[in-house]
Amino acid sequence: MITREQLGQAKRLALEYFDKASIVITPEERERIEVADFGLGDLEHEGLELLTYVNTRRCCAKELVLFPYQLCPEHRHPSVDGEPGKEETFRCRWGEIYLYVPGQKTENPEAKLPAGKEKFYTVWCQIILKPGEQYTLEPDTLHWFQAGPEGAVVSEFSTRSRDELDVFTDPGIKRETEVVD
Amino acid sequence: MITREQLGQAKRLALEYFDKASIVITPEERERIEVADFGLGDLEHEGLELLTYVNTRRCCAKELVLFPYQLCPEHRHPSVDGEPGKEETFRCRWGEIYLYVPGQKTENPEAKLPAGKEKFYTVWCQIILKPGEQYTLEPDTLHWFQAGPEGAVVSEFSTRSRDELDVFTDPGIKRETEVVD
Repeated sequence: MITREQLGQAKRLALEYFDKASIVITPEERERIEVADFGLGDLEHEGLELLTYVNTRRCCAKELVLFPYQLCPEHRHPSVDGEPGKEETFRCRWGEIYLYVPGQKTENPEAKLPAGKEKFYTVWCQIILKPGEQYTLEPDTLHWFQAGPEGAVVSEFSTRSRDELDVFTDPGIKRETEVVD
Repeated sequence: MITREQLGQAKRLALEYFDKASIVITPEERERIEVADFGLGDLEHEGLELLTYVNTRRCCAKELVLFPYQLCPEHRHPSVDGEPGKEETFRCRWGEIYLYVPGQKTENPEAKLPAGKEKFYTVWCQIILKPGEQYTLEPDTLHWFQAGPEGAVVSEFSTRSRDELDVFTDPGIKRETEVVD
């Protein structure tokens, strides 16, 4: 869980990143930026800020903000009711992102994990995305990503998004963010 | 058809618009910007510059560039083989766009049509999109759009794109651009 103060602070900081990336959003969108702590209560290290532009039955587009070395924990998007899981393209707009997918383990990866979390990060094939670079993930592919030292702004183009169905490697994760006063 | 010189000029100008919108693209992407004259040979008035980021069986993302008052002619995306037509969200990133869809005719619309083309533009419910504003079109909806006086950069988030299946109101349109030396 996070406090209302932490939530407000993260939303304000996310707006600064949208500005750095020259991404214009409406006043209504400023209000509905989401902050995800994945129920871990350690937003600084494992967390994500996001703005969903559109999410219909067929397709979805979001902007993601990650603060310096902030990490979106390992997960996958499984098939649901016979429909293939979410297919995602991540396109880096600003900063730098380290994306990890199944495949040959990268020696000396850039990512820094919080102490004691190593067992929840199992795929280590590193893809570095700088502004203008992108990567498309097939459905149901384990992945996680972390921003570099300056943070990152990433556009996500995908099929329908149903975050509540994501399967995380860390069993302690709850996708819904709980806010306390 | 357009000449190779016109093609090169339009691609270079499109790059300037990406710069104005602070959208970073890779050297490979700079090379593959598409220029569509819709077979009309009047790129300045009816035409579109586009960069497709991703287009899979399930989803698609593009950036569109329109020069000042450049116009994407009226068309729709029909169902194909039992699959609903393309669903599109247009998000203005820079400049201004006038989008026209079915519904109550807007009095004194902003758009300017080339002389003699009025009969190929049949829907006149105007939606003005400024940076950060967006609109989602249901499949098979007639629509057309024109940039304002400064031109526009527009992100398109959609289901699979199959431009060759688009149905244009103007029977003179050919979606493939023919380039002559």
